[in-house]
Amino acid sequence: MELHPITWVIPVAGLAAIAFALYLAWDVLRADTGTEAMQDIAGTIFEGAVAFIRRQYQTIALLAIGGAVVIGLVITVVEGQEVADTSIFGFDLGWRTALAFLVGAACSMASGIIGMYISVKANLRTAAAAQHSLVRAVQVAMRGGAVSGFLVVALSLLGVYGIFAAFGGFSNPEEAPFLIVGFGFGASFVALFAQLGGGIYTKAADVGADLVGKVEAGIPEDDPRNAAVVADLVGDNVGDCAGRGADLFESTAAENIGAMILGVAVYNIANLAGWPNPEAWIFFPLVIRAFGLLATIVAMYFVRGSETENPMNILNRGYWVTTLLSVGALALTTYVMMNTGTALPDNGIPAWVWMFLAGVVGLATSVAFVYITQYYTAGTFRPVREIAEASKTGPATNIISGTAVGFETTAVTAITISIALFASFTLGNQAGLVNEAGHNVGGIFGTAVATMGMLMTTAFILAMDTFGPITDNAGGIAQFSKADEKAREITDRLDAVGNTTKALTKGYAIASASLAAFLLFSAYIDKVNLILQNQIDAGTRAAGTLLESVDLANVNVFIAALIGAMLVYFFSSLAIRAVGTAAQAIIVEVRRQFREMPGIMDYTQRPDYARVVDITTRAALRQMILPGSVAVATPIIVGLLLGHEAVAGMLMVGTIAGVLLATVLNNGGGAWDNAKKYIESGQLKDADGNVLGKGSDAHAAAVVGDTVGDPFKDTAGPSLHVLVKLLATITLVLAPLFIR
Amino acid sequence: MELHPITWVIPVAGLAAIAFALYLAWDVLRADTGTEAMQDIAGTIFEGAVAFIRRQYQTIALLAIGGAVVIGLVITVVEGQEVADTSIFGFDLGWRTALAFLVGAACSMASGIIGMYISVKANLRTAAAAQHSLVRAVQVAMRGGAVSGFLVVALSLLGVYGIFAAFGGFSNPEEAPFLIVGFGFGASFVALFAQLGGGIYTKAADVGADLVGKVEAGIPEDDPRNAAVVADLVGDNVGDCAGRGADLFESTAAENIGAMILGVAVYNIANLAGWPNPEAWIFFPLVIRAFGLLATIVAMYFVRGSETENPMNILNRGYWVTTLLSVGALALTTYVMMNTGTALPDNGIPAWVWMFLAGVVGLATSVAFVYITQYYTAGTFRPVREIAEASKTGPATNIISGTAVGFETTAVTAITISIALFASFTLGNQAGLVNEAGHNVGGIFGTAVATMGMLMTTAFILAMDTFGPITDNAGGIAQFSKADEKAREITDRLDAVGNTTKALTKGYAIASASLAAFLLFSAYIDKVNLILQNQIDAGTRAAGTLLESVDLANVNVFIAALIGAMLVYFFSSLAIRAVGTAAQAIIVEVRRQFREMPGIMDYTQRPDYARVVDITTRAALRQMILPGSVAVATPIIVGLLLGHEAVAGMLMVGTIAGVLLATVLNNGGGAWDNAKKYIESGQLKDADGNVLGKGSDAHAAAVVGDTVGDPFKDTAGPSLHVLVKLLATITLVLAPLFIR
Repeated sequence: MELHPITWVIPVAGLAAIAFALYLAWDVLRADTGTEAMQDIAGTIFEGAVAFIRRQYQTIALLAIGGAVVIGLVITVVEGQEVADTSIFGFDLGWRTALAFLVGAACSMASGIIGMYISVKANLRTAAAAQHSLVRAVQVAMRGGAVSGFLVVALSLLGVYGIFAAFGGFSNPEEAPFLIVGFGFGASFVALFAQLGGGIYTKAADVGADLVGKVEAGIPEDDPRNAAVVADLVGDNVGDCAGRGADLFESTAAENIGAMILGVAVYNIANLAGWPNPEAWIFFPLVIRAFGLLATIVAMYFVRGSETENPMNILNRGYWVTTLLSVGALALTTYVMMNTGTALPDNGIPAWVWMFLAGVVGLATSVAFVYITQYYTAGTFRPVREIAEASKTGPATNIISGTAVGFETTAVTAITISIALFASFTLGNQAGLVNEAGHNVGGIFGTAVATMGMLMTTAFILAMDTFGPITDNAGGIAQFSKADEKAREITDRLDAVGNTTKALTKGYAIASASLAAFLLFSAYIDKVNLILQNQIDAGTRAAGTLLESVDLANVNVFIAALIGAMLVYFFSSLAIRAVGTAAQAIIVEVRRQFREMPGIMDYTQRPDYARVVDITTRAALRQMILPGSVAVATPIIVGLLLGHEAVAGMLMVGTIAGVLLATVLNNGGGAWDNAKKYIESGQLKDADGNVLGKGSDAHAAAVVGDTVGDPFKDTAGPSLHVLVKLLATITLVLAPLFIR
Repeated sequence: MELHPITWVIPVAGLAAIAFALYLAWDVLRADTGTEAMQDIAGTIFEGAVAFIRRQYQTIALLAIGGAVVIGLVITVVEGQEVADTSIFGFDLGWRTALAFLVGAACSMASGIIGMYISVKANLRTAAAAQHSLVRAVQVAMRGGAVSGFLVVALSLLGVYGIFAAFGGFSNPEEAPFLIVGFGFGASFVALFAQLGGGIYTKAADVGADLVGKVEAGIPEDDPRNAAVVADLVGDNVGDCAGRGADLFESTAAENIGAMILGVAVYNIANLAGWPNPEAWIFFPLVIRAFGLLATIVAMYFVRGSETENPMNILNRGYWVTTLLSVGALALTTYVMMNTGTALPDNGIPAWVWMFLAGVVGLATSVAFVYITQYYTAGTFRPVREIAEASKTGPATNIISGTAVGFETTAVTAITISIALFASFTLGNQAGLVNEAGHNVGGIFGTAVATMGMLMTTAFILAMDTFGPITDNAGGIAQFSKADEKAREITDRLDAVGNTTKALTKGYAIASASLAAFLLFSAYIDKVNLILQNQIDAGTRAAGTLLESVDLANVNVFIAALIGAMLVYFFSSLAIRAVGTAAQAIIVEVRRQFREMPGIMDYTQRPDYARVVDITTRAALRQMILPGSVAVATPIIVGLLLGHEAVAGMLMVGTIAGVLLATVLNNGGGAWDNAKKYIESGQLKDADGNVLGKGSDAHAAAVVGDTVGDPFKDTAGPSLHVLVKLLATITLVLAPLFIR
């Protein structure tokens, strides 16, 4: 088949992004590495991070290989019972899926490892640059983050493209998307454990270090006498950087594949109607993401500004450039690829215009979430101030107020998502994409285009996210190495910005998960119906038994929906508890070191940082297994017990529940964190106008809130993003098992 | 029509229960009223409670009258546009519904007021009895609580029966159930505001009194020098007693009406098949509840035991008697009423056997929830101990651990509900209730029978619930009036039991809401289809447009589901914040009294209790309006914008989300409360075996958790129960508006 030439942009942009990432990595690595003291602590962090990642990914690799074997076996056996039709899937569907699963898993692991590697190199360089220049420090941190961003998105793009090509996407574009769902599942599977393990590690180290250092021993944060402090700095990298990278890798992969599955429906319409390049509707998600990468490369050159500027503005400038270039690329791509020839919808306006507008809705949603998150988590607005005020009457009112804020944030989140879904669906519906059965598939495809539009900026968002742990680490290195005042002042400012960018990424991940929920749900139904239709054609199933609707009034669907919503809470409970258990192990060890090494307190003995890192690593890896297994097992059990329609109910309601609970946990946690920072910056005053700053009772109360928020926003919340998408990919892959 | 004679039990049991309640009230009122100091403080509580209830119910009455007018007008106007068919509904459907709404509202208010009145009389008598005998004190408190229990259930039974009769239930039993849904809506409407206002009052007073007394002034709980202490004691009554009474009134009413609507479907089958007494299937819910009342009357005589016994056992004895008698009554009623003549299902076992078993599932679910709640909130088991242990490392870990426990409780809750729904549905499906269209309606009717079985014990459960605030107050009175050691020791023991019974009732309310969700959802679909069928018959709508399924893959349904789940969080956020705002008003006033009345601290001046009560009353009533309005307005707005199918999605997913969040809030709050009590009872020890009791840092941390849990478990959680059922009744009543 003659593919449209624009599809060449996919490998070109993917390879360009990788080349650019290598250039950025080289640029970061050649930067000044600061004082010897800085290099010393940075080296320790580097070793700890590498040790954790090595062990974590070994564990995950074993789990993934086991998963692949199970998937291959199970699908092969089920297929043997003619539940799936071999004429579509080929006799080796099981092992093909297992292979796609492994490739997805491997790509996800690769992007996590490389991104992490650069990020733990960039932290030192950022601290060094901060001795001289704010802008230079921002650039080093952002470029270090961008290495992650570009690699994650490029590997996801090239991975999907490659496996699509390998499974016959160029000759059989309407069948191949169904064959590659294993890739998304593999990516989700790795992301789940990466995010869980990293999230547990980072917060166990943080909470453990705080409790045993600040609370028990009365020494400041990031104090070198605290044996857990290196583990804490390592944690920032493995949680925020590697974890979120894996999260967004699987988001982009799964949503890309889901959109391609929906594209198949439009392909069939286009084919029948004789429109030019019908396969373009399937390739569209890949092309649009490729342009997103190119836009982000350009935008990196706009990350600049003045020394006195708010660093957030410097980053925002780049983000806006990415967004505006993406709008242009979206217009070009829809115009070129969504070509209906002379056929127009009844309204007379070409299909591509409607789809372009749907894509703009997605980009706008992404911008909206950036600002919503800032409103709820930045100290300049009402919610954070409210929590800070409540801290005056102690920790209890701080917690109550933060909970109220966290709950409240669901409102604007849900309403924004609803508007985005409704708008993109309605726009898509105008595009005249009506199939043989008279069903308009444009609406659902419109939501897919919106999702892809939103994903165009992923590389930049992820770069901003990784900026967070890099600057956080840079601050820790500056503090630890007793760098000069100016460097510390700059790293403190960058750290505050990093907190915001980390929160933004979570908002973005939530928004994309919600917008994608609907498209992945439809992809599941398409896949189920493909299997059912094959069985009907083969005569093993009665006609008219396609899955036309997922009926909430069906008792099995209701039960599965209830279990899906429950899973979200239960999983979070396990993740939060895991942090506590792992933190306990750290506290015991640091206490032991204080006791047995009396020279630590007067700086004559160096604490055994490596031992704490090692203990944290083992505890985090042990603790990630239970929540991870529950997440994987529950949809399978429900599917086997209650069948394919019920699973759809679980997927949908579990997604709704997961998105909302993650919103509560992320934003509540972020608001608590910044309420503490608000007080530390001296903005809270008592009735007489006296500042209630560090050391006040209000500050102590705010520290409680911050500590509570830590496992919420950095362990459970982000892991829920992954859980939601895992539900989608696991049901897509295992659909043949659930058919009854 | 010749009704089956067993239906005579409905008015007989209803009137007998009222007579018995009057007897119990007389019995309580004639009991010893203790010392003058006791009477003094009890009098102040009484005045405050009556003042609050009077003002609150005036406000609610105004809102209800406004609501009735709007309902009447709107339904009349919509009906005028032929959206509803007058041939079924009569031209006055709007005003009939408005009337039913008002009667439901009035019955709900009446049961709240009378129950409250006796409860604030019984508290003094319980304190007085505690001077002499544990068993006598238990009996007084339980009888005081039973006045509420019997009145609430009897008024709900007689109210539904009366309005059913008045709207032609004896001549047209298949139409009347649809006409009386307004009764359920009126009850929910009142319950929402009663629970919100009472919940805000009780926790604002509690939190306010604690913060300004224990934290700021350093005086103990329930200390007479704290001007907010009377408001706190009043709050126990208006929140737990009046609020929960209104909650269960509307539960029983709404679920009863929903079950009757489902009974209509079976009536039609029975009528066509010529089974004897087809109308018995509609009357069944009323009869079964009547027997439940009779069983509870008998059980009251088993509330007895020895002075040395755990008082919980004394109550459990009565509960088990109620349950066992209910099983017998269920067997009798199903055997007599579910008579299919000579027709048997294919399995050869009569329908009544299957339905009896479904009812037993309901009773068993109720028992299961009693034990599940005890496991998660009593100090003898792992969850509470875990929180107490976590308190050793401060308030942050206490909160994290309590949150993890709260989240965890959703698992066993959801699984139990799933099993109950699945079992009752499957049993019902065996009963051979197949309609003309070949559709088996037995499954859904089975869940209705299970729900009704569960509701048989409501009066006893509610009596145990009201036992809580009575004993809590009795403890306060004993403390306040400096009663002798023995009395205080007994009231402390009763207070601890009261905490458990209050938690049990919440578990019971949650379970009944979940089990009923499915039946109310089906009732909504039945009602929508009745309207649609009329329009089809009238030629104003195309054939084949009945609501056959509620399709989650429909974008409007998904959006409505998302909004429904969000509403649950947003409403809780408003309710929790309302507590904080109202508490602030109390703190300001108590501080003023301490400042301006220096004699308070050395007991030479009496604080102005009444003024604090008054301020709390006004603040609570002002604060209940916003969350209440949001709860009422959201389903209406969604229905008007997105239509009748979308509303069904909102109802279902909102219910799931509400049930789970309420579980988290109730059980988390209860566990925090009891973790504090666990520490106070000296059961927590440090590594060296030293007791960490009152005054320890661990205790201070546990107090934080307890304070955080207060608005969760006593304001937001219980209000969510009502919200969930309000969603069901509001959609049932306003269905004609949402049809598109």
